[in-house]
Amino acid sequence: MTERLDQQFAFLNEADRLKSVLRATTLCDGSRPENSGEHSWHLALYALTLADHAPPGVSIDRVIRMLLLHDLVEIDVGDVPIHSANGTAHASTETQAAESHAADRIFGLLPPDLAASFRFLWEEFEAAQTPDAIFAKSLDRVQPVMANLQSGGGTWITYNVTLDQLDTRVGSKIARGAPRLWNWVRAQSLRFFA
Amino acid sequence: MTERLDQQFAFLNEADRLKSVLRATTLCDGSRPENSGEHSWHLALYALTLADHAPPGVSIDRVIRMLLLHDLVEIDVGDVPIHSANGTAHASTETQAAESHAADRIFGLLPPDLAASFRFLWEEFEAAQTPDAIFAKSLDRVQPVMANLQSGGGTWITYNVTLDQLDTRVGSKIARGAPRLWNWVRAQSLRFFA
Repeated sequence: MTERLDQQFAFLNEADRLKSVLRATTLCDGSRPENSGEHSWHLALYALTLADHAPPGVSIDRVIRMLLLHDLVEIDVGDVPIHSANGTAHASTETQAAESHAADRIFGLLPPDLAASFRFLWEEFEAAQTPDAIFAKSLDRVQPVMANLQSGGGTWITYNVTLDQLDTRVGSKIARGAPRLWNWVRAQSLRFFA
Repeated sequence: MTERLDQQFAFLNEADRLKSVLRATTLCDGSRPENSGEHSWHLALYALTLADHAPPGVSIDRVIRMLLLHDLVEIDVGDVPIHSANGTAHASTETQAAESHAADRIFGLLPPDLAASFRFLWEEFEAAQTPDAIFAKSLDRVQPVMANLQSGGGTWITYNVTLDQLDTRVGSKIARGAPRLWNWVRAQSLRFFA
């Protein structure tokens, strides 16, 4: 039991480093970049609050578990922004390989049963094929839109994002898992793309 | 539906402010104070990772929901540290009244059904009488101990905390919901109280 607790706390202490991984988006008040730890909390709260907009059959508790774990690989790889000076770097083969190595290392700190179950949830999220993962991915795209709306445009202004780019990079993914949310959020966003 | 989404997003935008509430404890690397948003994420991850140390009958998914919500009242009231220059300010009547007003305001941003269910979970956590709430409270006391262990003593050094004070203010509450965790953590802590 002591060895098991050693492993569980080694993982939890390592996870603390996610609080030092900075994202491109800021807090809603624009005061500083958001970090991936607090982002993960906010997303889990999104799932709890917006549960009634999930398609039938989605388990919100599984979505929350996925969202708590989804960014841990950034401890090694950093955050890969949706909008950047080079357009989008999201989901390159190199990034995917680096994230897989990071998952090996970070989940590998855990006892084998937990390592396997957390890895399974993270891979399900990344693959975005199950209803739970598709909804979780939608929330992960909605939350930065809200931060940009609240902070006066945020990364849309920084990177001269067009409405077409927003629709392609963000909207299509939100609409896949949560069409009502995208309708609402897109209507709010239009004033930045006049 | 639009009005419901207006209310849900008003709550989620307000919740963002929890990322600017600073706690007495630091990150594990000691680099800066932890904020209550990232703390809430870390605690939910504690629940997911340490689920096998919960007493029989505890629902980890309910514990996670409680922990996601438990500190939102700090947006209005701030964090009340366990250890401080005046000993412990925790759980004064004034603090409890202020937190109850904060809960009225913050949960009151939500549609009535969600306001009621979130308020219920928060009150259950605060009352610390159900198995779920007792385990959640234990985790809320374990995590700052780990931060102090990792950062070289942290608030124990700042406020000259004695082993007796640690046992009374922290240990008794951890042991109530998670005795195995307290045994492990206390053994690790002894070197700071030699």
